[in-house]
Amino acid sequence: MEVQSKFVTLKNQIEGAPQESYFEIKETSLKQISNDEAQLIVKNLYVSIDPYQLNRMKSHSSTHSATKYANQVKLGQAIDAHGVGRVVVCGDERFKEGDLVVGHLGWEEYTLINTSTADGFFRKIESSEFPPSYYLGVLGTSGLTAYAGFFNVCKPKKGDFVFVSAASGSVGNIVGQYAKLFGCYVVGSAGSNDKVDFLKNKLGFDDAFNYKEETDFDSALKRFFPQGIDIYFDNVGGELLEAAIANMNMFGRIAECGVISEYTNKRRSAPNMLDVIYKRIAIQGFLAVDYTHLFQEFMSFTCDQLRNDKIQAIEDISMGLESIPSAFVGLFNGSNVGKKLVQLE
Amino acid sequence: MEVQSKFVTLKNQIEGAPQESYFEIKETSLKQISNDEAQLIVKNLYVSIDPYQLNRMKSHSSTHSATKYANQVKLGQAIDAHGVGRVVVCGDERFKEGDLVVGHLGWEEYTLINTSTADGFFRKIESSEFPPSYYLGVLGTSGLTAYAGFFNVCKPKKGDFVFVSAASGSVGNIVGQYAKLFGCYVVGSAGSNDKVDFLKNKLGFDDAFNYKEETDFDSALKRFFPQGIDIYFDNVGGELLEAAIANMNMFGRIAECGVISEYTNKRRSAPNMLDVIYKRIAIQGFLAVDYTHLFQEFMSFTCDQLRNDKIQAIEDISMGLESIPSAFVGLFNGSNVGKKLVQLE
Repeated sequence: MEVQSKFVTLKNQIEGAPQESYFEIKETSLKQISNDEAQLIVKNLYVSIDPYQLNRMKSHSSTHSATKYANQVKLGQAIDAHGVGRVVVCGDERFKEGDLVVGHLGWEEYTLINTSTADGFFRKIESSEFPPSYYLGVLGTSGLTAYAGFFNVCKPKKGDFVFVSAASGSVGNIVGQYAKLFGCYVVGSAGSNDKVDFLKNKLGFDDAFNYKEETDFDSALKRFFPQGIDIYFDNVGGELLEAAIANMNMFGRIAECGVISEYTNKRRSAPNMLDVIYKRIAIQGFLAVDYTHLFQEFMSFTCDQLRNDKIQAIEDISMGLESIPSAFVGLFNGSNVGKKLVQLE
Repeated sequence: MEVQSKFVTLKNQIEGAPQESYFEIKETSLKQISNDEAQLIVKNLYVSIDPYQLNRMKSHSSTHSATKYANQVKLGQAIDAHGVGRVVVCGDERFKEGDLVVGHLGWEEYTLINTSTADGFFRKIESSEFPPSYYLGVLGTSGLTAYAGFFNVCKPKKGDFVFVSAASGSVGNIVGQYAKLFGCYVVGSAGSNDKVDFLKNKLGFDDAFNYKEETDFDSALKRFFPQGIDIYFDNVGGELLEAAIANMNMFGRIAECGVISEYTNKRRSAPNMLDVIYKRIAIQGFLAVDYTHLFQEFMSFTCDQLRNDKIQAIEDISMGLESIPSAFVGLFNGSNVGKKLVQLE
C-alpha cells in the first residue's frame, strides 16, 4: 500500500527569528511496507510545535557545540516532531489498524514508523479517558518536562517562592500549576496583559506580570518577590535570568529548561556569579529524556489531577498542515497560550 | 593588661582593582580583659590574604545583592581575616597562655577574642606535627574549600577530565592535587610560564597553560581537552568560564568557587545556556562554611596525604604587617603561588 503525504520542509537554514517564507509544503509517497519489518504507517492527527526546533534549523547547528546534540533539520526533508496519530497500515502484531499512537512522528500527514528502532516515547494510547491531544501536552513531553524539572531539579519545599518565566507557555503553565498544588507561592511572567490575566484568574497563579511593560526586571522581581525567590524555572534566559539570580534567596535552585529569548538573538545572560557563589545557587540544565523513569509516576499523578479538575490542560490548536509554519513562527512572537499544536484532520 | 596593636585599615572603599595607597597602618590599644567574660588576647603570627576580601571593600558592597552576605569592611577599622596566633592574655579556662589558636583574627598585631561568640572555625591547634601556617592553607579554609568543592560539589569519577583555573592559587593547587590523587586527568590554567612549569613539574598536573598567552580560550581548551571537560573548578569566571562551558561534556559539573577576573572589572561571564541545557550541565555556587560537617574527614585525609608526601603545602609568605597591602594587591596581579600569607613575627 502507498499513501500520498504532504509535509512541511525547510528551504533555508535559519539565522535569527524564523519566518514563514523559510518553509514550504512538499508531497511524497510513502510506500507499501515490507512484510519482513515491523513497520506502521500512521496518519497524523496532531503535531507538536515547539521552540527547541529552531535550534535544529539554525545555519550553525551542525557544528555548534550545544545544538549538535539535537539532530540538525535537513533542508527539503520532512521535519520530525512529536505527534499523535492513527495506525492506517499495520505491520507489527503489537498494534492494529485504528490504534492511536503517540511519539516521534513529523510535520507531515503520514509517518512511516519502524517500530523496532522507534525511541522509548513511542507507544499506543490505551485509554480514551482524555482527548488524544493531551498526550502531546499535559500528558506528554511538556508535562514530563514540567514534572521532572519542578519536582526533581528544583527540589521544592512547601512555601517556597517560585518564579516561572514564559509561564503561559507549554511547560511554564504546567510548572505553575504543579507548584501551586505543592503549596508554593507562584509568580509567572508572560508577554501580554491577557496572558497575565489568564495566569492569575484561570490558572491560580498568586501573581503574574507582563515583562514587556517592565523597564527594569530587577525592580519588577523585587516588587513581586519582596522576600526573594527560592526557585526559578527558566524558559527564557537573557536579562530575566540575570534579574532572577540577583533576587534569588540563599540556596536557590534554577532549572534551565529553555532560553527562548536567546534562540533568536545574541543577547546572552550574563548573571552575577558572585551572587551564585555567595547565595550558593544551583543552576541545572535538564531535558525530559533523562527522566523517563518518572514517566509512570508523572502520568499517574497528572491524570488524577486532571480527573479532579486540579490541573487544566491548556492547548492552543491551529488547523491544517499549511498552518504549521505560522504556528511555529508565532511561538517566537508570543502568539500561543499553552501547548501549541496543529490538528491535521 | 593592655597591649599596643598596629593594624591595617582601609581609607577608601574600592572601585576596580585595589592599590596599596588605599590602605594605611594605624595603632590602637587593646584593653585588659574583664574577668567576667571569656576573652583572649591573641598575638597574631600569620594572617591569611584572600581575594574575596576585595568584595567586602567595594563601594557598593553595603547594598550589593551578593556581597551583602559578606560583612562590609568599615573604613578606619581593623579588617578581620583568618589567622594563626598565640594566646598572650587568657580569660577562658579552656585555653592557656602560649596556646596556638586558629580562626577569625585580623590584619593586625593582636586580636581580642570573645570566645563565647567566636565562630565554629576558632579553635586551639593541638598538634605540633605541622607548621602553624598550614592551618590557614592546606589544613585550613583553603583546604576545606578545595576538599568540599572537589569531592562534594564536583562529584568526581575516576578518569574524569578536570579543569582548574587559577590552578596555582590557594585553593586551585589543592584541588588539582586532590584530583590527581583521585585518579582524574587534570589540566590547570595560570598566569605565567613559571606557574605552568610549577603545576606540571612540581604538582603533577597532567598539563597546564598560561592563559595570558592564549588568544582564544575556546581553542585552548579544545587543545587540552580533546575529549571534553567533565569537571570545571572555577576560580576566575569571565571568558574562561564561557569557554569551559562550551567544552564541557554531557552531565558536566561546575563548582563556582570564585570569579577573580570579575572582582576587578565588569566583564561578566555570558555562557551559552543552550550548552547548559543540552549538555545538562550543573553549576553550583558554594562556600566552605557549609561543609564544616566534613572538617574532620577533610583533616584526617589531608594530614595523611601530607605525612606520606602525597600532597604538598604550597605557601607564599611575606614578612611583616606593613607588607599586607602589597600582598593583597598582588593577588590581583597574579603575584602569589599557592596560599598567600603574611607572617607577623
